[in-house]
Amino acid sequence: MLDCIVVGGGPAGLSAAINLRQRGKSCLVLSAAAGYLAKAERMDNYLGMPGMSGQEMLRRFSEHSAGMGIETRTGRVGNILPFDGHFMLNFGGDMLEARSVILATGVSKAKPVAGEAELLGMGVSYCATCDGMLYRGRNVVVWGLAEEAASEANFLAGIGCRVTFVSGRRPAGLDAAIPFETGSVREVLGQGAVSGVRLTDGRELACTGVFILRAAVAPDSLLPGLELRDGFVYTERDMSTSVPGVFAAGDLVGKPLQVSKAVGEGLIAALSAAEYLDRADRA
Amino acid sequence: MLDCIVVGGGPAGLSAAINLRQRGKSCLVLSAAAGYLAKAERMDNYLGMPGMSGQEMLRRFSEHSAGMGIETRTGRVGNILPFDGHFMLNFGGDMLEARSVILATGVSKAKPVAGEAELLGMGVSYCATCDGMLYRGRNVVVWGLAEEAASEANFLAGIGCRVTFVSGRRPAGLDAAIPFETGSVREVLGQGAVSGVRLTDGRELACTGVFILRAAVAPDSLLPGLELRDGFVYTERDMSTSVPGVFAAGDLVGKPLQVSKAVGEGLIAALSAAEYLDRADRA
Repeated sequence: MLDCIVVGGGPAGLSAAINLRQRGKSCLVLSAAAGYLAKAERMDNYLGMPGMSGQEMLRRFSEHSAGMGIETRTGRVGNILPFDGHFMLNFGGDMLEARSVILATGVSKAKPVAGEAELLGMGVSYCATCDGMLYRGRNVVVWGLAEEAASEANFLAGIGCRVTFVSGRRPAGLDAAIPFETGSVREVLGQGAVSGVRLTDGRELACTGVFILRAAVAPDSLLPGLELRDGFVYTERDMSTSVPGVFAAGDLVGKPLQVSKAVGEGLIAALSAAEYLDRADRA
Repeated sequence: MLDCIVVGGGPAGLSAAINLRQRGKSCLVLSAAAGYLAKAERMDNYLGMPGMSGQEMLRRFSEHSAGMGIETRTGRVGNILPFDGHFMLNFGGDMLEARSVILATGVSKAKPVAGEAELLGMGVSYCATCDGMLYRGRNVVVWGLAEEAASEANFLAGIGCRVTFVSGRRPAGLDAAIPFETGSVREVLGQGAVSGVRLTDGRELACTGVFILRAAVAPDSLLPGLELRDGFVYTERDMSTSVPGVFAAGDLVGKPLQVSKAVGEGLIAALSAAEYLDRADRA
């Protein structure tokens, strides 16, 4: 059982991790695909590190946390379940346990498509390795909007799902046996359960499962009951969320969407999580 | 007339300055003596710059802001006066003008001594170059708790004040003609006006002015009317204070007293000040 799991390996998540470490707390960073910082050509407003590409900045951030002995695993968190005073995280099929959680997943700039929110958990999923087994032998659509979508689709095909991959263009790593459709999903169809998807060109594909793989996941789909305001995770100034033991930092809690703010909030979330753990130990 | 004056040249102030600059706003940083960061032997929790002394970190921060063409002047701000929709700052006897102000002065860990708050502006001053002329020909005590105290005492002697310097030990740069008393001020004496000070060993020194020169100044003594909570400057989450056009960032707004938080808040204060200026331009 870890003291804290940090969901997100960007500036907020890594700042949280190094500060948890400094407070003597055990932690693990779960990192999905790189966010938009990796695409920044040149940054000049993170104090002390001027004139740097987003890639180079992320490289230094990762070196810093790795140098402090912090483990980072790459993959997708399916969901987070509060359980008996701690948390269970579904991470690519493994169940991880922690006494507290820091959410630092960044933001998805995408809006949900029609039917997506209504059918979440009823055929709509954000994590192939988490939910794939439910769809063995069935038709599923993988809508690939993130780098790792191809490998998730390959995984689904490997366990026996009948996969169709939908995306702007066929990704390099996609299994040659998987059918591909050029386009985007406009609507998830079905009443009480997914029956198919409609693409932007109007075509319909019949399926019982649709995996929507964006670079960042809407935080309340990770952890039901999390209070949002204006689409961002609501936190107090100590970065505590509406769920006790869960803290949040970085872009997912609101603007400005900037490295300095994310790093500062990661620090605060870590100190607040450490205090929460210490309080629990005394009780 | 500057768009913004940043009071404080530590992590919060310099982060604010580089972000003002990025938004195309003119600014000037006024920096007093270095705060406690300069004394940190090794820091490991500012993401991307591990294993660094406080001095080295401050050097990189200053290089970053200087590299962006930001001017920093060293000295003490006497007070800040809201005037006709902008601000006048008394800086070592010069009057500077700006449309907005970001306070990033750090914290003084010292508590005020007895009589200090009551007699502020009635003989108690925090700035020799600002208020010295009022005390020409009179007895003044300089209580030196900051590096630049000796030069401020020399300035007072030079303009004709009869100075006694009180401190733990005689500082190197103090004019040989200035009498020195070893000790600390325990109490400022007087009813409605300063009549003297009592030292910790019980001795009393008669004077009409006492200059208390700490490394950081209590923020509400800089700008009367600034709302405090628990001794810290109160801000909204956009780092705006109770005074329109005045923003604050870093240690003076509250804990944790850490570089990452200060840098993040400096960014937010700068963006909020830039928005305030843009709004005023449109009105």
